[in-house]
Amino acid sequence: MVISVETMAQNAKLASYTLSSIKTAVKNRALLNIAKKIEENKQLILKENEKDLEQAKQLLENGEINQSTYNRLKLDENKMRDMVNGIKDVKKLEDPVNKKLWAMGLDTGLDLYRVSCPIGVIGVIFEARPDVIPQISALAIKSGNAVILKGGKEAYNTNLILANLIKEALSEIPEFPENVINLLFTRDDVAQMLALDKYIDLIIPRGGKSLVNYVKDNTKIPVMGHSDGICHIYIDEFADLKNAAEICVDAKVQYPSACNAVETILIHESLVENYLPQLVEELEKAGVTVKGCEKCKESVPHIVQATKEDWATEYGDKIVSIKSVKDIFDAIAHINVYGSGHTDCILSENKQCVETFMNLVDSAGVFANASTRFADGYRYGLGAEVGISTSKTHARGPVGLEGLVIYKYKLFGSGQTVAPYADGKKTFIHQRII
Amino acid sequence: MVISVETMAQNAKLASYTLSSIKTAVKNRALLNIAKKIEENKQLILKENEKDLEQAKQLLENGEINQSTYNRLKLDENKMRDMVNGIKDVKKLEDPVNKKLWAMGLDTGLDLYRVSCPIGVIGVIFEARPDVIPQISALAIKSGNAVILKGGKEAYNTNLILANLIKEALSEIPEFPENVINLLFTRDDVAQMLALDKYIDLIIPRGGKSLVNYVKDNTKIPVMGHSDGICHIYIDEFADLKNAAEICVDAKVQYPSACNAVETILIHESLVENYLPQLVEELEKAGVTVKGCEKCKESVPHIVQATKEDWATEYGDKIVSIKSVKDIFDAIAHINVYGSGHTDCILSENKQCVETFMNLVDSAGVFANASTRFADGYRYGLGAEVGISTSKTHARGPVGLEGLVIYKYKLFGSGQTVAPYADGKKTFIHQRII
Repeated sequence: MVISVETMAQNAKLASYTLSSIKTAVKNRALLNIAKKIEENKQLILKENEKDLEQAKQLLENGEINQSTYNRLKLDENKMRDMVNGIKDVKKLEDPVNKKLWAMGLDTGLDLYRVSCPIGVIGVIFEARPDVIPQISALAIKSGNAVILKGGKEAYNTNLILANLIKEALSEIPEFPENVINLLFTRDDVAQMLALDKYIDLIIPRGGKSLVNYVKDNTKIPVMGHSDGICHIYIDEFADLKNAAEICVDAKVQYPSACNAVETILIHESLVENYLPQLVEELEKAGVTVKGCEKCKESVPHIVQATKEDWATEYGDKIVSIKSVKDIFDAIAHINVYGSGHTDCILSENKQCVETFMNLVDSAGVFANASTRFADGYRYGLGAEVGISTSKTHARGPVGLEGLVIYKYKLFGSGQTVAPYADGKKTFIHQRII
Repeated sequence: MVISVETMAQNAKLASYTLSSIKTAVKNRALLNIAKKIEENKQLILKENEKDLEQAKQLLENGEINQSTYNRLKLDENKMRDMVNGIKDVKKLEDPVNKKLWAMGLDTGLDLYRVSCPIGVIGVIFEARPDVIPQISALAIKSGNAVILKGGKEAYNTNLILANLIKEALSEIPEFPENVINLLFTRDDVAQMLALDKYIDLIIPRGGKSLVNYVKDNTKIPVMGHSDGICHIYIDEFADLKNAAEICVDAKVQYPSACNAVETILIHESLVENYLPQLVEELEKAGVTVKGCEKCKESVPHIVQATKEDWATEYGDKIVSIKSVKDIFDAIAHINVYGSGHTDCILSENKQCVETFMNLVDSAGVFANASTRFADGYRYGLGAEVGISTSKTHARGPVGLEGLVIYKYKLFGSGQTVAPYADGKKTFIHQRII
């Protein structure tokens, strides 16, 4: 039966009400059953994935997709194992729902509690990787949210079998409501989804800048995600130069297309003459193309001249730009103008400089003496992430389970009216309970 | 000097970086100085307010504004005192910035902290009441946010003098950055502001449905607020009928135009025959016009027949609709369809029913046995509020200081790179510090 996107969203909304107060044990049983179902149907999933890969090969040959998209699309035994373990890991995480976050006694017999609860219905739009489906589904289930998932069309068959297996696994848990996991297929579906602010509470676009901007331009629904990952490393005059180059190389080459890879290195001007040549050498040895400002080129003439555009570019490749800065404030100002609020790092052994940098750089992650590549939900110990947010409301940085909940206020009274408080006949006691 | 809205927003953004790490003592000194400045210039403020009132009288005579708008515009000694006390109250609140919310040791010498920080630049659009300016300014200063305020044009002179006095008071605190408090005047200014997602991090519209919808339709910036306040009271079969009518009357007449006033009363069908006539009598005695569903009319024939539209109407006046429901689930379903997610209440002495209602009603405030009029930042003990949010991200219900902050992740390393962890040569310890 084909239903409209609106009906799907409406059903998801209804499901979300029931789901919001389901017991942790039931959610955990659901997660284990999904893991089991995926494990049992490994061959079937790989067969469906093979269909997608057949078509993708054509697209690859025609140059319509690149090798890295093809690789991300391809499932193998290792990825299947990670997928199943990922679901089991989410099961182990603490349930973020129904936590008493704060409580205040307003008066005798009038107690107010702020209690965590799911957001409701979350729309997630992502690109080729089919392993996103079980990951997001697991996080949604544990946090009590219904989801509407739209994957890349290249992964059509793999996404479909995965979503169907998850739905089947959930249907085997009697206490679990229907319509929690929903799958969309076309761009037109997405356009319709973005209009459904009545039913959908949050949209998470996981993809490039153009996807994120398209979503923001076309919806009233709150959007959580990041469009750019223009990360910086500032090498301070008080940096420990022993491992500075190593950190820069790691932040660039360990996974150059990741959003948390470094794009621009800012270097204190006192280091340009004596240290920069060594840094460039190390980067080039690692296969990185180095671009630099005029002052940098004076010290290392063979590097490519950087233009103003470079400071605002996410290369997503083994390219890095280097700029000399007068002092830490110059570095901070550059980052706050050209950065994307993702992750920025200072290399310095001076505590005061580290503190100044961390306070004044307005990014989701401010690091001292560690690679920007640590900005990741798993590495942060959040368990798993639905994405990285550069927004400044709700959740910032890698978003795990906690970013998928909000709260409601529960007020337990015993017949109170407001009038006597407004008239001054009664006064609030306002005593913190929690 | 007249500057463009864009320059204003850019300056506010720059101010926000410095403001984010200003000491509590400095913020408190700034607040006290504002309170003092307003107190000292009371006569001047009242004189400027008189100018606005002169013009408003004309508008009132022409029917362009109503008496309640005129009343809200008018300042007097009492409102001036409340204004000054309000600022002093915010000074007393705990600083919400720079709190360590969570911390995790990732490995030896690699510690991650989630630390609260201001959102950045907040745009607030509000209607006639000039007392909003000191209130929002105080909350912004305490939470370390720069603000751009746009008040109602009817309060032009009062808003201008208040904003100027606040700016003057801030300029006398040497550690305090410039451009923290900014004032806009025209609708065209607002349109320009909504396009500045580069500089503005959050928009709070405080006004009617049409303002909120206009804002949501015209910006990529996250919006926090509420468009409707369709609040319900459900009188359960297990309600203590002694005070049920009193709570309903309070929730309706204590301030009928407030967003937390009740609009629809749902009554368990078992109470329609014997209890409803008494309830209607009490409401009518308090001057309330009662509308009702067919079943209710059978019991109390003289009440106005309610139509489906009534269930979706915020009367903002001494009118209430009453609907008979089969059971608690019927009540919950009605609220989740027709409510606005603001505040909904159950009257019941049955613990199970209260729990079910509170878990399944998807509203910012779910109350048991207390008037919906308690939904308010001051009454909740939050100190003051910037508004009430029916959104389901970031902050929900009355939004106080805590709703004006977000967090950043601070990672303190000692030279770590990601490669050895990715290669399996090192493993994360992930030990909670906080």
